[in-house]
Amino acid sequence: MIIVILAGGSGTRFWPLSRSRHPKQLMSVLGGKSMLQRTVERVLPLNPERIIVITNRLQAEESSAQLTSITGVPLEVIAEPVGRNTAPAVGLAARLALSPDTVMAVLPADHVIPDEEEFCRLLRRGEAAAREGNLVTLGIAPTRPETGYGYIEVAAGSTGLGPFPVSRFVEKPDLERAEQFLKAGSFYWNSGMFLWRADVILQELEQQLPEVHAGLQALPVRDGRLSPQGLEEFYAGVKSESIDVGVMERSKRVVMLPATFGWSDVGSWSALPEVLAADDQGNVIINSAGEILTDSRGCLAYGGGKLVALLGVSDLIVVDTPDALLVCHRERAQEVKGIVAELQRRQLGEYL
Amino acid sequence: MIIVILAGGSGTRFWPLSRSRHPKQLMSVLGGKSMLQRTVERVLPLNPERIIVITNRLQAEESSAQLTSITGVPLEVIAEPVGRNTAPAVGLAARLALSPDTVMAVLPADHVIPDEEEFCRLLRRGEAAAREGNLVTLGIAPTRPETGYGYIEVAAGSTGLGPFPVSRFVEKPDLERAEQFLKAGSFYWNSGMFLWRADVILQELEQQLPEVHAGLQALPVRDGRLSPQGLEEFYAGVKSESIDVGVMERSKRVVMLPATFGWSDVGSWSALPEVLAADDQGNVIINSAGEILTDSRGCLAYGGGKLVALLGVSDLIVVDTPDALLVCHRERAQEVKGIVAELQRRQLGEYL
Repeated sequence: MIIVILAGGSGTRFWPLSRSRHPKQLMSVLGGKSMLQRTVERVLPLNPERIIVITNRLQAEESSAQLTSITGVPLEVIAEPVGRNTAPAVGLAARLALSPDTVMAVLPADHVIPDEEEFCRLLRRGEAAAREGNLVTLGIAPTRPETGYGYIEVAAGSTGLGPFPVSRFVEKPDLERAEQFLKAGSFYWNSGMFLWRADVILQELEQQLPEVHAGLQALPVRDGRLSPQGLEEFYAGVKSESIDVGVMERSKRVVMLPATFGWSDVGSWSALPEVLAADDQGNVIINSAGEILTDSRGCLAYGGGKLVALLGVSDLIVVDTPDALLVCHRERAQEVKGIVAELQRRQLGEYL
Repeated sequence: MIIVILAGGSGTRFWPLSRSRHPKQLMSVLGGKSMLQRTVERVLPLNPERIIVITNRLQAEESSAQLTSITGVPLEVIAEPVGRNTAPAVGLAARLALSPDTVMAVLPADHVIPDEEEFCRLLRRGEAAAREGNLVTLGIAPTRPETGYGYIEVAAGSTGLGPFPVSRFVEKPDLERAEQFLKAGSFYWNSGMFLWRADVILQELEQQLPEVHAGLQALPVRDGRLSPQGLEEFYAGVKSESIDVGVMERSKRVVMLPATFGWSDVGSWSALPEVLAADDQGNVIINSAGEILTDSRGCLAYGGGKLVALLGVSDLIVVDTPDALLVCHRERAQEVKGIVAELQRRQLGEYL
């Protein structure tokens, strides 16, 4: 099995800590190692044949630097010249497989998975299902009517450990539908974690996204490696396509394995209290020199190494960095990306 | 006339910007000059004979440094070895007067008075009333039922420019009484600004606070100057007494001049929006490199030179300093001093 880590996200919802050269997956949001480092370490017990990290040019240098400390398995960092969503990246990794029946596990670099043993067990089961020719997706049993994720509906009556046949993929729902999905019990969150054989995903790309496939076929791959020029030419010609919309929603070979581990995609600052230990008032203070919390509840503060004092405040996100300070209501955390958009509009690139 | 500026306050309610060596009156809360510098400059048009600044040892050095830039009048900085409230400081200044009938204007160093011309006109009128042997206090017509100030009640039917006979001093009232005072029209805020002759205040001290007076009489003053040893001995022996409680509340010679100028004692962070220009959402952002304010109202942010982004928050005070970050509800601004007390309790002197 090879591991393909998709690590090119911008993570604008973690501004101002996340910047274009230092996005969420390269951050140490939990303290200690970065999310990318943890993602790589999490799969090492599987003894993967290769680990391929696909990122973008701005982040390639820091990604490589962070990964040099992790040894024992060949690590390859591919820097996309331009972002083209997930389908070209996934197809590229499939073309680099040395054998057509290599199973690939495709994993985002910015998820939190506390139970790593269970995660590895599930990937082993996913590998077996993938080897049989399935497109395997990992589904997360929803715990709230989340409107920020896509959903996967499995066949009625699916019970046990799976894999389950997939009825359909559903785009991000509104709150009413999300509540229905939560009640129904047959809907799972689309985690963006997939397993398949290299030849199977290439066949699917040929059928569903023939232009992407044609570009992939033209790539001059030697011994599982690609020249910088080949990479440049491929990305210059390929369209932006997502593997979810372009392949998973259309294919008849999709099965879902229900995840049996805790999971968070840590989609915004407001998700951090779920994955970090909060005090009995629901406050999480990260990277502070000390805390004085008075009548304050449900706050997340990233203290920039300072003493943090909160007095009579609730449900705030406070992020202090050397050049920018964010104070945001917790329910507005998704809109932090709008601040980044505003900075772009004002051409304040130094804060991006 | 000599000017006596009481500048030894700790300003703990402006933590974390205000520190023991850099309190509110030495801060540039309004941008530009410090409150102490503005206090001195404000009285220069009166051509005072001397200006005596009484502060404490921690603040003496920075106070002197700030005042070296202000010329044209002899400036004397006296550093109290220990704080003994206002009566000993006021008595000491009276003892330093070269002539018994010198009029002294006693002014706090941490008030904001936008109309400086009107302020000087009022001090001139206060000087005349003081010359006649009165203890003159400046009263501020209340604009809200403030519970944080003491009040002065003047004789019923007092109208015109004053001075008015004073009926009584009232300690900080509760909200109900403060509302009654506001309606009654005969109550004024006690501003802590006073004028009197040196000989008159010394007589009053002799009657009301004889121990303080005895200590003052023992002081070896030569040519209006005091030796460091004399200062040390006086403070070692004198009790802590306030001029308001110890003298003003008891004396029969008190009159009040109603202030005809805008005034704020900028008692806490929440007072700043009153004296600084707020945007149309009531936000005031100080010392920032830029602002992105989204759905945010009534916030005061001191940005530590950074880009400040506020998203969906209201009525917050945010103060970013190199080693401490405060986020406080605006209505809790008075309690910032409690954070300072907690820092003292935890012996975190580096933040004080």
